[in-house]
Amino acid sequence: MNEAPSFSPVCPTPDKPGETVELGHGSGGRLTHDLIESVFRPAFAHCETDLTHDGAELEIGGARLAFTTDSYVVQPLFFPGGDIGTLAVNGTVNDLAMCGARPLALSCGFVIEEGYPLAELRRVAHSMQAAASATGVRLVAGDTKVVERGKGDGLYINTSGVGEIVAPLPVAPGRVRPGDAILLSGDIGRHGMAVMSAREDLGFDPPILSDCAALHSPVLRLIEEGIDIHCLRDCTRGGLATALIEIARSAGLAMKIEQNAVPVSEPVRGACEILGLDPLYVANEGRFVAILPGEQAEAALSVLRDFEQNAALIGMVEAGPEAVSLRTIGGSYALDFLSCEQLPRIC
Amino acid sequence: MNEAPSFSPVCPTPDKPGETVELGHGSGGRLTHDLIESVFRPAFAHCETDLTHDGAELEIGGARLAFTTDSYVVQPLFFPGGDIGTLAVNGTVNDLAMCGARPLALSCGFVIEEGYPLAELRRVAHSMQAAASATGVRLVAGDTKVVERGKGDGLYINTSGVGEIVAPLPVAPGRVRPGDAILLSGDIGRHGMAVMSAREDLGFDPPILSDCAALHSPVLRLIEEGIDIHCLRDCTRGGLATALIEIARSAGLAMKIEQNAVPVSEPVRGACEILGLDPLYVANEGRFVAILPGEQAEAALSVLRDFEQNAALIGMVEAGPEAVSLRTIGGSYALDFLSCEQLPRIC
Repeated sequence: MNEAPSFSPVCPTPDKPGETVELGHGSGGRLTHDLIESVFRPAFAHCETDLTHDGAELEIGGARLAFTTDSYVVQPLFFPGGDIGTLAVNGTVNDLAMCGARPLALSCGFVIEEGYPLAELRRVAHSMQAAASATGVRLVAGDTKVVERGKGDGLYINTSGVGEIVAPLPVAPGRVRPGDAILLSGDIGRHGMAVMSAREDLGFDPPILSDCAALHSPVLRLIEEGIDIHCLRDCTRGGLATALIEIARSAGLAMKIEQNAVPVSEPVRGACEILGLDPLYVANEGRFVAILPGEQAEAALSVLRDFEQNAALIGMVEAGPEAVSLRTIGGSYALDFLSCEQLPRIC
Repeated sequence: MNEAPSFSPVCPTPDKPGETVELGHGSGGRLTHDLIESVFRPAFAHCETDLTHDGAELEIGGARLAFTTDSYVVQPLFFPGGDIGTLAVNGTVNDLAMCGARPLALSCGFVIEEGYPLAELRRVAHSMQAAASATGVRLVAGDTKVVERGKGDGLYINTSGVGEIVAPLPVAPGRVRPGDAILLSGDIGRHGMAVMSAREDLGFDPPILSDCAALHSPVLRLIEEGIDIHCLRDCTRGGLATALIEIARSAGLAMKIEQNAVPVSEPVRGACEILGLDPLYVANEGRFVAILPGEQAEAALSVLRDFEQNAALIGMVEAGPEAVSLRTIGGSYALDFLSCEQLPRIC
């Protein structure tokens, strides 16, 4: 589990003289952070953008709003358990939920490649409508652009979202404290493995289904139950490990994670072993980490288990230098960002 | 001016048996409307989406919000008078302004093709920052995805925007009335011609610069001056003609436009003649139509001329079947959506 992934990683060529964008810049890992720091932060420095987070908090006319954006370039467009449409709705609903917000409205921007079958576009539109209805969120604004053959890959979708923040106190890494409990909302690695199985025609039996789902209901229940959520993060690109590392760095604190406590289903574990992947770094689309006061861990876990039976307390926050360490049977290992792209275009 | 455009139009093959997306579906004209009606409206029917308009009005916690989205796929990425970054900021600022809103915050979603030069990405990011600063809008949320070589075209950007609606009454086609004046905020056709000159290396002398600019200031001034704006529409894809036809259809009213009153600069007129294009259908990125009570036309025009000297009263709304007619020296002509794509990827 602590081995470097060996399945066709797409690494940047380190000695390349010309600076260009590489696939790894879209990984959500180290190169994405490099891109943000070297390109976007200098340009957007005066705009107060929190560039490491998809979501922003706005106060408009007395209302506390969350505003988020995400572009979806998953390949293939249809995979076991979902498609780019379900992903585009649920993913942005989840970005809003991770701000402690009730999702209200989404916009949809389509970039379609010339020649894309209208029948597939209809399927995707219906998936979006079904996901929106299930979530109670409205699709309120749209835009369609078409690009020439060979200038796209079927379909890219951007969804941006607006929600009303209902958490009474800020939900942000800055509120994480030593002694906080780290809860995980369910088993990990299913989305990444489902997409890989479809992309590489791996034909797992039984098939591994994506965990793609909206996460606002458990978050809103935690808030209703009076849990003082300090921080939330969905475990998408880069998986659980990347989410934890980002929070630890932003909070300037240490996290101790128990490997045995992290739920991984047998099919996912087996598939990861075959492919040489570490489930900790595999993308999820329906799992999140909640960090909250240790004394509320039990009550919070009971809420999360109403939604996913294998939600778990996976570790604790401690004082000390920012770091995430994983305790295994064989010892403790520091988790770090992957330096290259393990599974490109997973979302 | 009333001839069909003859410069390399990209028309769908009418007898094609398989239904696929064609470039014309992104034109903003007839095929875009067909796509919306045949694919998106059936799927999104229960979502109250106003699919013919980029912007939506939301009421959240007592605040009246406008929420809009637009994806930018302009080619080339840099053109006389701007680049995809200025376009992405100003275009979405304008969508908000057209809702009668004060633009407040934008999100940015980047889809970058592997191999795109980081130096160019930095230029675009700085353009976005400069445009945002000039407008007073904040870039608050971002997302970056990278796709493989040959699956994109350098850079696509989605910006979505949130603003606070300050117009006291709704700004929408439903409020247009017979007797309303139709004002145009400046001369038309510059953006389309600037992009075409860069794309085809036409080298006009002097160069035609895009009119790409933020339009919130004149709109907010109209509102401050007590003008009862009935409807606003920026004249982007499909140009002035398409904007007017859309409004006339939504309002179910007739519009009479005086060709002589529509300002077109000599360089744009000359370039359009050479290329066989009708300036009425050429894209703008800094021009809008304002429809308001006839008795306020003079006051409104005076405001618009503080910003663009050649703002003009171009026509009137009349009772009668929905139609836009253009009065020229030679007679009156009905304007209709173009059935094919005149200038693909203009924004």
